[in-house]
Amino acid sequence: MPNISIKGQQMPASPIRKLVPYSEKAKKAGKKVYHLNIGQPDIKTPVEMLNAVKSIDFEVLAYSPSAGIASYRKKLVEYYARHNISLEYTDIQVTTGGSEAILFGMLSCLDPGDEVIIPEPCYANYNGFAHVGNIVVKPVTASLEHNFALPPIEDFEKVITPKTKAILICNPSNPTGYLYSKAELETLRDIVIRHDLFLFSDEVYREFVYGGQQHHSVLNLEGLEQHAIVVDSVSKRYSACGARIGALISRNTELMTTVLKFAQARLSPPTFGQIAAEAAIDVPDSYLEAVIKEYEQRRNVLVEGLQKIKGVICPTPTGAFYTVVELPVADTEHFCQWMLEEFDHEGETVMMAPAAGFYATKGLGKNQVRIAYVLNQSDLQKALFCLEKGLDAYTSVIHNS
Amino acid sequence: MPNISIKGQQMPASPIRKLVPYSEKAKKAGKKVYHLNIGQPDIKTPVEMLNAVKSIDFEVLAYSPSAGIASYRKKLVEYYARHNISLEYTDIQVTTGGSEAILFGMLSCLDPGDEVIIPEPCYANYNGFAHVGNIVVKPVTASLEHNFALPPIEDFEKVITPKTKAILICNPSNPTGYLYSKAELETLRDIVIRHDLFLFSDEVYREFVYGGQQHHSVLNLEGLEQHAIVVDSVSKRYSACGARIGALISRNTELMTTVLKFAQARLSPPTFGQIAAEAAIDVPDSYLEAVIKEYEQRRNVLVEGLQKIKGVICPTPTGAFYTVVELPVADTEHFCQWMLEEFDHEGETVMMAPAAGFYATKGLGKNQVRIAYVLNQSDLQKALFCLEKGLDAYTSVIHNS
Repeated sequence: MPNISIKGQQMPASPIRKLVPYSEKAKKAGKKVYHLNIGQPDIKTPVEMLNAVKSIDFEVLAYSPSAGIASYRKKLVEYYARHNISLEYTDIQVTTGGSEAILFGMLSCLDPGDEVIIPEPCYANYNGFAHVGNIVVKPVTASLEHNFALPPIEDFEKVITPKTKAILICNPSNPTGYLYSKAELETLRDIVIRHDLFLFSDEVYREFVYGGQQHHSVLNLEGLEQHAIVVDSVSKRYSACGARIGALISRNTELMTTVLKFAQARLSPPTFGQIAAEAAIDVPDSYLEAVIKEYEQRRNVLVEGLQKIKGVICPTPTGAFYTVVELPVADTEHFCQWMLEEFDHEGETVMMAPAAGFYATKGLGKNQVRIAYVLNQSDLQKALFCLEKGLDAYTSVIHNS
Repeated sequence: MPNISIKGQQMPASPIRKLVPYSEKAKKAGKKVYHLNIGQPDIKTPVEMLNAVKSIDFEVLAYSPSAGIASYRKKLVEYYARHNISLEYTDIQVTTGGSEAILFGMLSCLDPGDEVIIPEPCYANYNGFAHVGNIVVKPVTASLEHNFALPPIEDFEKVITPKTKAILICNPSNPTGYLYSKAELETLRDIVIRHDLFLFSDEVYREFVYGGQQHHSVLNLEGLEQHAIVVDSVSKRYSACGARIGALISRNTELMTTVLKFAQARLSPPTFGQIAAEAAIDVPDSYLEAVIKEYEQRRNVLVEGLQKIKGVICPTPTGAFYTVVELPVADTEHFCQWMLEEFDHEGETVMMAPAAGFYATKGLGKNQVRIAYVLNQSDLQKALFCLEKGLDAYTSVIHNS
């Protein structure tokens, strides 16, 4: 039998899916599992998007252009203009999910062995895409005590080497829910210009900001016209994860020419998804306003609930729909597995994502979990109650063992 | 401005798209261009596929499982059973087009610096995906004189090194239209077992075989259960290129576990496309029978026409819908560009793909073009007439210059 090589086997596994076998076992055993581990919203997709797909009248389901359907790219210019981001449609290439935008961006800008600096905890799949391109992730650690704000710029300077080509942020952040301030972004701009780097910003949660905060895009940072690359996606914005439509945005034409080569190799992004995504641009504002209001309420329910549980430390996230919290346990991977395997409260339990997988530095985040508030408020309340009971029970089991 | 790195810039550009700016200019100048350069069929997609998508009744367009929707994977088992290929649904992972199956397969089986042997001329994007994984393509040259049959096995033995991990074939072949015989596949089996390699077979054109020939899958080669990897796609089979649905198939469970890690990093294949593809399995046989008959007639029209043109050498392809032919010119890239820029016959011209881009060996294929017979027979006739006139005119221009 042929040997599977090192490359494939060393591909980092998704930390969000690691416990899936245990949740499946729990469900088979008849338990109800509240999924706080994944970013699959229960929010309805705009009917306009689904109707656009239901109304297709072509007879041949053809390839779209590699950079995306031109009418959709032009429509996206309108969308960004509403966010005061001024673009040409050629600054936008449509990708198969935000995932592909991250991959194409990394492959275009970094050589094998080159380094990208990413504040941690970070979206775990950045590590996977870096692995594909043999790119080295250099973490800079953000701390729960400071709400996971941008680490001091000295920490970035410390890890910059001649091989550093880029900094990557997620704003607002999955997994921390932190929204970067304008001042923080300007600090990043300065370091990016000083060291001649690219600045990737994953802004798929752009609209999901709470408490009257404002989102700032790296596309509006003066002097970064050639350095800024934005990753975008319709997945979370319109609860349309299955469309697999994202975008890579940059005003750097040389970069866009290079990105197009990767895009051409895979031929085209999905046609149906683009049709749905194009229709999304004309969805009335009231849709997103209601969604954002709903997430803000969920955030409040979750954060207030968590902060009341003894030993839990929960910062108040201001964006996205995640939060990374500290639990009064030594090893959240063990605790989360135990919650699925050993525990239930009246037949119910909770699934969370152990946070260690969101850190590139080994040993960090072992007492933290990422919680996604993608459930309705009533379910969130029940899940919180369950978690509290579970922590009680776990602590006494650990103490008595 | 930051420097774009070597990796992105060295990504090989698609040879099929290289002349697109010239065809666009030709169209702007009012010329009608017959597209023999691309594999976008004009055949209608089965209505069952489009209707399945029009009939969706879900409210949330959610992620599908990373390996694909289970009901579709199970349905695919039926499809392969009809081709006498016996599979479990866990042997099948759904991918975003055949493209992604090639990429995930390469990344799972080959380390950076490892080598894959590919008979040339070959599908040009194999080079692109190898580049992504820093994998080295070692070509073994097939010759037009022998209809692009499998090169002698000694030629394979000559390029095998300790870094060789796999052989990749496309059967029937894009770009040559050659269908490998059972004996040829058994020769490949022997070398694969002798050197402990993987055998990738891109079988997306499985049904498109002509003249009463039979297609043989590497999945049915005895002794290759752990070595054989099939790449598949609904794009050409059902003229559904825009669905972006393919598959990676292997009975090697360790490999499939590794492939799943890459699949999880990109979350999931497109949901709409999978719904269409699942409906395709129940499309009546009459659909594909009619399509195959149509392609066979087009092949006959094209090959007979080409063989009548003075100086053109055209083998008779037995599968897919491409043929690589020799033209009586020194440089087909120059000729193809000239056809778009300088030539027209009564306002019409022809676009073909210069074949050099389908060879990994520099300097080969310079007097060859790939022709796709994806146009209806009447248009094919007109395109042939145009090509003949163009060759005449070009030859006299070149002679007189």
